[in-house]
Amino acid sequence: MSVSVETRYLESFAAEHETALLMPYVEKAAELLDSGCGPGAEWRGWLTLPDDFRSGKYSDEYKRIKLAAAKIRSTSKVLFVIGIGGSYLGARAVIEALGGALYNNIAQVSGGVQVYFAGNSISAGYLNELIKIAKANEFSVNVVSKSGTTTEPAIAFRVLEALAVEKYGAAAKDRIFATTDKARGTLKTVADEKGYETFVIPDDVGGRFSVLTAVGLLPAAAAGIDTDALLAGAAAAKTDSEKSGSECKKYVALRNVLYRKGFGVELLVSYENRFTLMGEWFKQLFGESEGKDGKGLFPGSAVFSTDLHSLGQFIQDGTKLLFETVVWFEKEENDFYLNKQDDDRDGLNFLCGQELSEVNKKAFLGTILAHTDGGVPNIVLNVNKLDARGLGYLIYFFEKACAISGYLLGVNPFDQPGVESYKKNMFALLGKPGYEELAKQLKVGG
Amino acid sequence: MSVSVETRYLESFAAEHETALLMPYVEKAAELLDSGCGPGAEWRGWLTLPDDFRSGKYSDEYKRIKLAAAKIRSTSKVLFVIGIGGSYLGARAVIEALGGALYNNIAQVSGGVQVYFAGNSISAGYLNELIKIAKANEFSVNVVSKSGTTTEPAIAFRVLEALAVEKYGAAAKDRIFATTDKARGTLKTVADEKGYETFVIPDDVGGRFSVLTAVGLLPAAAAGIDTDALLAGAAAAKTDSEKSGSECKKYVALRNVLYRKGFGVELLVSYENRFTLMGEWFKQLFGESEGKDGKGLFPGSAVFSTDLHSLGQFIQDGTKLLFETVVWFEKEENDFYLNKQDDDRDGLNFLCGQELSEVNKKAFLGTILAHTDGGVPNIVLNVNKLDARGLGYLIYFFEKACAISGYLLGVNPFDQPGVESYKKNMFALLGKPGYEELAKQLKVGG
Repeated sequence: MSVSVETRYLESFAAEHETALLMPYVEKAAELLDSGCGPGAEWRGWLTLPDDFRSGKYSDEYKRIKLAAAKIRSTSKVLFVIGIGGSYLGARAVIEALGGALYNNIAQVSGGVQVYFAGNSISAGYLNELIKIAKANEFSVNVVSKSGTTTEPAIAFRVLEALAVEKYGAAAKDRIFATTDKARGTLKTVADEKGYETFVIPDDVGGRFSVLTAVGLLPAAAAGIDTDALLAGAAAAKTDSEKSGSECKKYVALRNVLYRKGFGVELLVSYENRFTLMGEWFKQLFGESEGKDGKGLFPGSAVFSTDLHSLGQFIQDGTKLLFETVVWFEKEENDFYLNKQDDDRDGLNFLCGQELSEVNKKAFLGTILAHTDGGVPNIVLNVNKLDARGLGYLIYFFEKACAISGYLLGVNPFDQPGVESYKKNMFALLGKPGYEELAKQLKVGG
Repeated sequence: MSVSVETRYLESFAAEHETALLMPYVEKAAELLDSGCGPGAEWRGWLTLPDDFRSGKYSDEYKRIKLAAAKIRSTSKVLFVIGIGGSYLGARAVIEALGGALYNNIAQVSGGVQVYFAGNSISAGYLNELIKIAKANEFSVNVVSKSGTTTEPAIAFRVLEALAVEKYGAAAKDRIFATTDKARGTLKTVADEKGYETFVIPDDVGGRFSVLTAVGLLPAAAAGIDTDALLAGAAAAKTDSEKSGSECKKYVALRNVLYRKGFGVELLVSYENRFTLMGEWFKQLFGESEGKDGKGLFPGSAVFSTDLHSLGQFIQDGTKLLFETVVWFEKEENDFYLNKQDDDRDGLNFLCGQELSEVNKKAFLGTILAHTDGGVPNIVLNVNKLDARGLGYLIYFFEKACAISGYLLGVNPFDQPGVESYKKNMFALLGKPGYEELAKQLKVGG
């Protein structure tokens, strides 16, 4: 089993019977998900992605993904991935978690493909930074957008496509890859017209559940990630999660017990710098799925021991509104031993002879004891290792837990109606054709 | 005035009279701070740093900082800054905010000094990444630690110091800079013995208030930041903040009105990718200062429009527990204009002819209207520009607001007793000499 849920640090916050009494409802929610009888059932395509790619309906697509990644690796120093929200967070999180917190910096030295994420803001400053990097490097572009007209990625694509044409002329078309709708939309039309290779965002997979499609797999493969292992881990999580009383369901029950007791914030914690972006991915997954109809846990994230020296004080002694979900990786592949120093001037010699990962583990245990003492419940998810298999497992584990948890909360975990509100206002304020009425209202109101 | 507080989006959440009725207490708290009659008064050295460095008691130190930075720039491609919590967050935040979100990647291309932050975790994986970078580049080291024995930075310093000696022999001493106590402690002793140049962490300045000392100024200057302008901005903020009814005090009043109404989370929002780490700095400053005795706002941060596509749904429609403090920069130095496309296939031509910063501004206004509509109060801090002067202003503004706010909350904003708890447990679990009693207790309890 690749993720096991440790409950021993919850004893004074959620008794065993509380979880047990919630379990029938968790099983019912899982049943709704499996049967397709819950709301948003048309968005459940992510449930079968691991096998769809390895041996099912997307196996040809998967072969093309690998070929495209190889092509990018042979022609480019830099890959720009253009996308916003679910169209970039998963890819970025996977690359950092497996490639390293300093992945791009090390790729610059070692000759790997650097991956930069574009089109996820409207900042002119950031766009200018990306242009500098494009001008200095051989590059390819992977534009990820269902429609091709979302403002942020569309702006970045206009700019980077033009730079590619300026640099490579007609050959630019071999450096541009579009991940988009299988048949419809602006981006699909343009790509077919111009001869860009296209990959599919399936109709039944929403953005925040799309990391195990071409959306995440192509950038990850271009960065040299073992996507086979990633998918194998996810497939194992699928099998495990379906069992009655699975660890995945246990996690759902626990977080809902705590939510119902008034804990309003779930802080996802790890002890690895390279897991930072996975925290952001988690925040989107759960926040966007559960944060509706006035409900939901506010999702936060932290990396310890780093953030023990920033958020630690608040967690230990501040307002009691949060609980922690700690992802702990049991094995470290690239461990480190500290050398003895004759004079032991920094007093660290007592650490010599044990792996650095052991020291990290003691920080983890020491922190849990301190925080639970301070009134902060801790759920621990033990994961074997932060490798491609472990990460794939964890991704599917969280996706499944999120969907079940959303049903248990009584929301549709697959829509995001609230994301449209700012866009409509923005279009109206920008004078976009079709938004004249709203523009008038905003001006009256403003 | 470099920061003005915009209250018009608060009307339905906090009436004008509510802020007015809190103001006498804000002024009283400011008086406690100024007079030194509040708790932790011995930690108020940060109040006068801007002038201390420009023309006062630290002006010689400041000259040496500039010389050391010039030396680093002439000998090194990479600077490792070793520190945890306040000993790295401020420096990293300033460098990213002014040098760019991709500062290191662009420095690698343009020949500037890349700055990597070490010693802020116990991750073996991250340490191994840093070692790769050290082996591939000419480097210097700036170790930042009051004592020299804090576990995380001490481990990193042992490793990087050894690598420097291996690479540069006796000349390593000219590449190692220690920012530490002026007289005492392991690091000061070692540095003097080995001939490392030292800079001072003043006795009366705590970690999270130390960015405008050598702690932040040396790394920033090495990265080519205009530290004179940074300090000038902070000096201006000092003068402005002291006035009765200042914008700084207004911000304190507003956030406390919202806190007392039950909003438990303050989300610091900006619309610039390069402001991301300033969000982390803000979280430490406020979380560590206010999060005690069971009190305080939980500090979060986000960058829009990026995170509108991850946290946006929760903010718009989820549990109503947060308010937003938006930092808006009015002018963009490196703006961008979109080119017209003949076929307007992505539908973006309506944006041509206006600056990208104008589009960003409409996203900002559209978002505020949407979120306030959705029941989320928004405080807006208008800042002239995200340049060194504006950032210096903002840093001092937040520090002062934080200290006054802490007094108003009835806590000592300058201590952090809760940070010790995990450390003690960790030492006991690691078998550190002197922690035998606690080790026994933990084993009985665990």
